Amino acid sequence: MANPTAAMLVIGDEILSGRTQDTNSNHLAKTLTEIGIDLCEVRVVGDDPAQIITAVNALRNQFDHVFTSGGIGPTHDDITADSIAKAFGVGIDIREDARAILASHYANPADLNKMRLRMARIPDGASLIDNPVSKAPGFLIGNVFVMAGVPAVFHAMLASILPTLAGGTPLLSISVRVEKPEGSVAAALAEIATQHPDVSIGSYPFIQNGVFGCNLVARSTDKALLKIIAAKLAEI
Amino acid sequence: MANPTAAMLVIGDEILSGRTQDTNSNHLAKTLTEIGIDLCEVRVVGDDPAQIITAVNALRNQFDHVFTSGGIGPTHDDITADSIAKAFGVGIDIREDARAILASHYANPADLNKMRLRMARIPDGASLIDNPVSKAPGFLIGNVFVMAGVPAVFHAMLASILPTLAGGTPLLSISVRVEKPEGSVAAALAEIATQHPDVSIGSYPFIQNGVFGCNLVARSTDKALLKIIAAKLAEI
Repeated sequence: MANPTAAMLVIGDEILSGRTQDTNSNHLAKTLTEIGIDLCEVRVVGDDPAQIITAVNALRNQFDHVFTSGGIGPTHDDITADSIAKAFGVGIDIREDARAILASHYANPADLNKMRLRMARIPDGASLIDNPVSKAPGFLIGNVFVMAGVPAVFHAMLASILPTLAGGTPLLSISVRVEKPEGSVAAALAEIATQHPDVSIGSYPFIQNGVFGCNLVARSTDKALLKIIAAKLAEI
Repeated sequence: MANPTAAMLVIGDEILSGRTQDTNSNHLAKTLTEIGIDLCEVRVVGDDPAQIITAVNALRNQFDHVFTSGGIGPTHDDITADSIAKAFGVGIDIREDARAILASHYANPADLNKMRLRMARIPDGASLIDNPVSKAPGFLIGNVFVMAGVPAVFHAMLASILPTLAGGTPLLSISVRVEKPEGSVAAALAEIATQHPDVSIGSYPFIQNGVFGCNLVARSTDKALLKIIAAKLAEI
């Protein structure tokens, strides 16, 4: 059976302006690869309701799971929850269980001000995602996991939903480093790829201290087969 | 007049498996911001012709410029050029000027083997993009700049096309670091945002050594206005 599929939607003007380097999608990619869920697409859009709605609807219809990061904080530019509600065509309001979680975080009830209460706005029908770092929850609606952009919080939320994700067969990989330019090994590599059509074989070039080289990577769910291919790649 | 718009398409299984952290889109984002071109969307897709064709056609119809990275090397898994040709519905073949560029790179003509010649395959009607690092050219077809995935080469190719890009008004930004949690400053921030609807004001939270803080960022093309807003943000 084919592995479940997934997409990531990164939300935030700060990524598109170059101010912030997104690392959440790389963390998600590694995590999903380990449990056998295939990350098939990543999109980055700005803090714009129309862009978010279009992207989330395109991705949730196309893939088994969608993971979003960013835009669920207390400030005026945090518009992800409202946009997701619109994408699903459902209402959104402050929810009692989410408010209670936030309230438990503040010794002084006045600290749970009007802006912070924005973080208790949850689309109708969603379930909450635990946030052990800073309390304000994420949520799951349909097949869309809506999570925070701060990496420490994104990682913690992902860890908390991970046990609920049914994975497939983890894709294993082996890597052979070659200090020759790609063009010198491409023919031999293509031959190995032709011999093993079920194995994904890739070459990832690098330039290091003026030396052109490449990492030859084979990916498969079959450990024994990868061992055979590793030996063939090593001969290159 | 509104700034020109752009999208980035990152191509490569190695990004989606988490093996490689994409940094090219961050570099592109910074570069475009400096010259007043608005990067509106980034997509990452795998080494799959259908995915590449769908994404490139969606993006080139929606934005003024599209920049791609990855998949233009000599190995069998480098399928970007062929996929782009299909997306545009044009032919593709080894082109003499591209072959000459590659040939000039090798002292021994035998080194320009069949696999390396793949890098001289250019879609009909495209113009070449200079690659001072490793010779093999990128290309421009329609509004799509097709460039390499290796960061050193991507940077060099971007530098070589930069003078051909007509920018708009560069978006300037100021940033104020606040060592208070977002929820404490959100109301004051929203008030400033309401007073200045033409300025994009955002809050980017961080957690550092257990301290919750945020960077308040204002973006505008108006330098004098940003100075006023910086003073207001500093009061927070």
